[in-house]
Amino acid sequence: MKKYDKIVTNAVGREVPTIINGEEHIPFQGVGKYKPTGRKFAPRISSCADFPDDGNKQINSLKEALIKSGLKDGMTISTHHHFRNGDLIANQIFDIAHELGVKNLRWYPSASFPCQEHLIQYLEDGTINRIEGSMNGPLGRFASLGKMKGLGILRSHGGRYQAIQDGEVQIDIAVIAAPTADPFGNANGVNGDAACGLLGFALGDSEYADKVIVVTDNLVPFPAIPWQIHGNYVDYVVKVDKVGLPEKIVSGTTQITKSPDRLLIAEITAQFCEEAGLIYDGFSYQAGAGGTALSIGNYFGDILRKNNWKASFIRAGSNKYPVKLLEDGIVKYILDGQTFDLEGIRSMRENPGHINTSPFTSYNYHGKGNFAAMVDIVVLGATEVDVNFNANVVTHSDGYLLHGIGGWQNTLFGKTTIMPIPLFRDRIPVIRDEVTTICAPGEMIDVVVTERGIAINPLRKDLIEKTKDSGLPIKTIQELKAEAEAICGVPEKPNLSDEIIAVIKWVDGTVIDSVRKVIED
Amino acid sequence: MKKYDKIVTNAVGREVPTIINGEEHIPFQGVGKYKPTGRKFAPRISSCADFPDDGNKQINSLKEALIKSGLKDGMTISTHHHFRNGDLIANQIFDIAHELGVKNLRWYPSASFPCQEHLIQYLEDGTINRIEGSMNGPLGRFASLGKMKGLGILRSHGGRYQAIQDGEVQIDIAVIAAPTADPFGNANGVNGDAACGLLGFALGDSEYADKVIVVTDNLVPFPAIPWQIHGNYVDYVVKVDKVGLPEKIVSGTTQITKSPDRLLIAEITAQFCEEAGLIYDGFSYQAGAGGTALSIGNYFGDILRKNNWKASFIRAGSNKYPVKLLEDGIVKYILDGQTFDLEGIRSMRENPGHINTSPFTSYNYHGKGNFAAMVDIVVLGATEVDVNFNANVVTHSDGYLLHGIGGWQNTLFGKTTIMPIPLFRDRIPVIRDEVTTICAPGEMIDVVVTERGIAINPLRKDLIEKTKDSGLPIKTIQELKAEAEAICGVPEKPNLSDEIIAVIKWVDGTVIDSVRKVIED
Repeated sequence: MKKYDKIVTNAVGREVPTIINGEEHIPFQGVGKYKPTGRKFAPRISSCADFPDDGNKQINSLKEALIKSGLKDGMTISTHHHFRNGDLIANQIFDIAHELGVKNLRWYPSASFPCQEHLIQYLEDGTINRIEGSMNGPLGRFASLGKMKGLGILRSHGGRYQAIQDGEVQIDIAVIAAPTADPFGNANGVNGDAACGLLGFALGDSEYADKVIVVTDNLVPFPAIPWQIHGNYVDYVVKVDKVGLPEKIVSGTTQITKSPDRLLIAEITAQFCEEAGLIYDGFSYQAGAGGTALSIGNYFGDILRKNNWKASFIRAGSNKYPVKLLEDGIVKYILDGQTFDLEGIRSMRENPGHINTSPFTSYNYHGKGNFAAMVDIVVLGATEVDVNFNANVVTHSDGYLLHGIGGWQNTLFGKTTIMPIPLFRDRIPVIRDEVTTICAPGEMIDVVVTERGIAINPLRKDLIEKTKDSGLPIKTIQELKAEAEAICGVPEKPNLSDEIIAVIKWVDGTVIDSVRKVIED
Repeated sequence: MKKYDKIVTNAVGREVPTIINGEEHIPFQGVGKYKPTGRKFAPRISSCADFPDDGNKQINSLKEALIKSGLKDGMTISTHHHFRNGDLIANQIFDIAHELGVKNLRWYPSASFPCQEHLIQYLEDGTINRIEGSMNGPLGRFASLGKMKGLGILRSHGGRYQAIQDGEVQIDIAVIAAPTADPFGNANGVNGDAACGLLGFALGDSEYADKVIVVTDNLVPFPAIPWQIHGNYVDYVVKVDKVGLPEKIVSGTTQITKSPDRLLIAEITAQFCEEAGLIYDGFSYQAGAGGTALSIGNYFGDILRKNNWKASFIRAGSNKYPVKLLEDGIVKYILDGQTFDLEGIRSMRENPGHINTSPFTSYNYHGKGNFAAMVDIVVLGATEVDVNFNANVVTHSDGYLLHGIGGWQNTLFGKTTIMPIPLFRDRIPVIRDEVTTICAPGEMIDVVVTERGIAINPLRKDLIEKTKDSGLPIKTIQELKAEAEAICGVPEKPNLSDEIIAVIKWVDGTVIDSVRKVIED
């Protein structure tokens, strides 16, 4: 089977394959242009007659559960990244597959992390054909060098749910690692030694996968409350000694920045939002977990306090900073998609206003609306932005695929999207003539904030008008680019082959760009 | 179109049609015998591009929402009974349909109530072809006299979810009356003037219906928390002045019985459970809302207190009695499917251990297990039981169809099912040679408790053994029947035509019995 075939030029001018790993895919047609006409994926109907009368679905080992689930060549196996770099289960699954001599699996993680570098051997020996999902760090580097047998497909969190819901990806076996579960399969992430907050990334898998295995190190009597995952979707429950490493679950990126440049960017961003009238009593924002975004959230908090206002909600990625705002009564709700530190987990367990959300509620573009569009201010990073405001979040300027999309594409549907980015990183300018990889078309990005000025997308005449007399350093994006190049020089193009190693999906399942193989020096 | 055709004799010896309202149905084959082979119903894929960017789905009126939803002849319209006899919306829907000249609708309520007697005119004039759902009171009497144009189909709460999930009933428009909702369509039953506790009966409709309309009298800003109904499934939101009559939402049946006979039955039932060793630290039970069941629940509470035990959970129908046990720490959780009084509603709003469940979690037989099977003791009523322990809950001994099935069939899958019933009602014996309508085969009923003795199903040798020296009045069911007939005489058979007016579904979607037309005196 060819990895890809039938290349066309899509609506953002990028060449993308329409046959990927032997299946047909649709090229990007513009935001909101592609209208699905089909029906959702229809899972097999089960019968209680085939499940234990006493509700106890416990199986002795993950291996036994995988065998009972019918693990065989060519299947699609899904895992999830709520333990981030502390996951212990994904590696075990493919160790078992390898031991059983199973080949050609599609691994469909919600994201992969460096702790799964172990799986490179199975990508090499054909146990795993390809990864469809984020490839952070070493797995991305492996793929970038053209070493993966199949073609990678990167989807946003919402796009991953959409692909499952629409039957584009049919999961044979979903393995859900859970900090707490009962023998029926009800599971949550708020309790247990490996508590990680929530299990929303696994929701779609639980609903649509043919077989669902819950693995936990904290088996409690029925009912496990809350049931973030419904046992009614679960086939087998496996108790293990340790499901995740708590010390690696908590991300290292949940401290506000100490860099003077980034603090400046954060401050300018908050000022811009205030001057543009984007912050008001009842406004909402999306808070990222990076140092700059956290600082911006704190500035937003200050502005709310100063005016005696309340935010109606924060869409998060939660950690101690939004939790403090919630507990101080400065925001009414945290609508949380992923907890990033222990305070986030504690708050989700304790605070009725700290709400468990999922890629379905927040991000699925093939639903009857989603939450992302209702957010007033969305603050996001990017590896590159170009003079047409197109943005890249997956590849570096050297062409290596080192990051996943996460919820990034999905949150862009918020009312105002702001990218606070440094003008250059390691003396490489961030604003380019053309981004290496288009992850979002320029129309979705409203404002770029750097330490040397703010560029507003010409489409947002309202923002330009509102801030023209603000005294803020408003510039064109071309001016910002020129300033960076005056300091760092004009950047070199990455050394790329024509060969495609992965594609990037838009939120509606269409292909927005291709990622090329990197030619090593 | 013939109302029914192709009658066969099913596994409990009842004659049932296999063509009903022009569609094929499967006769009952025995408990756990019918294995579904197909796939779940696949709803149309939506796109956020077709929904408002700001998430506001508000429409001016129910009429406009129904027109926008494409209301037309022959459609299936669903409603729900969480307001019980205080519902104000179902009548309006069909007033609008009548006004628009729409004909031949299938009404698919989770239950109908006397407050919907208003709809008889539309059953007569052909606006509504038939009711598929409980027909309590006047609507049942209307159907019993053969006046409904189509054939009625009665399903349990779990069977209703199953029929939706499996695509047996495809809902065109679901109208969900909600005590609280936001403009996106997130909705709950815990807040607002018409608070009714929960909206679980509408869950399946929200997930699978083509169009979903939420009607509320308490529109709150996004996000309405908790979202018992996800706005991501909702097409339109309508604000009305009054969605339900709170004073009629609360059922009149939530007082413990004062009848000495029924109190005796309750006491004997509790004693039986204690003697049989069914009550232990960590046990669970299903509490009904009837006076006898409530008394039994209180006796269970006494036994728990006496032994310093805790129940792990009560499956409910909640009201002030289970809530008291929860708040006293005698039970850990109430897994609630329907709140029956204001205390139940308050508790669901306030107590983290008072959990919102649905027919999906608790009752769906075509899931990977459900909660009902995990309950230790299930206490249920019946209109009739026969000497083979077959039980009837929908028709009276005069043949009139006056009750729905509710969760009754579903809860029978609990570990021990006990029916505390009076030996006779209005001098009509309750234990018969043959029940008028089989709603459950005898193998599902373990114990019948009357004021004059207890009959244990011969299949439950363990219970017979455990209670043989208990001093309890254990008798055969034939003995109990004979005692009743000695007092009241042998009851007359109901005066029934051969004509079938409705069928009763088993939990797996198969047809377990037919209901015949009553010949009026």
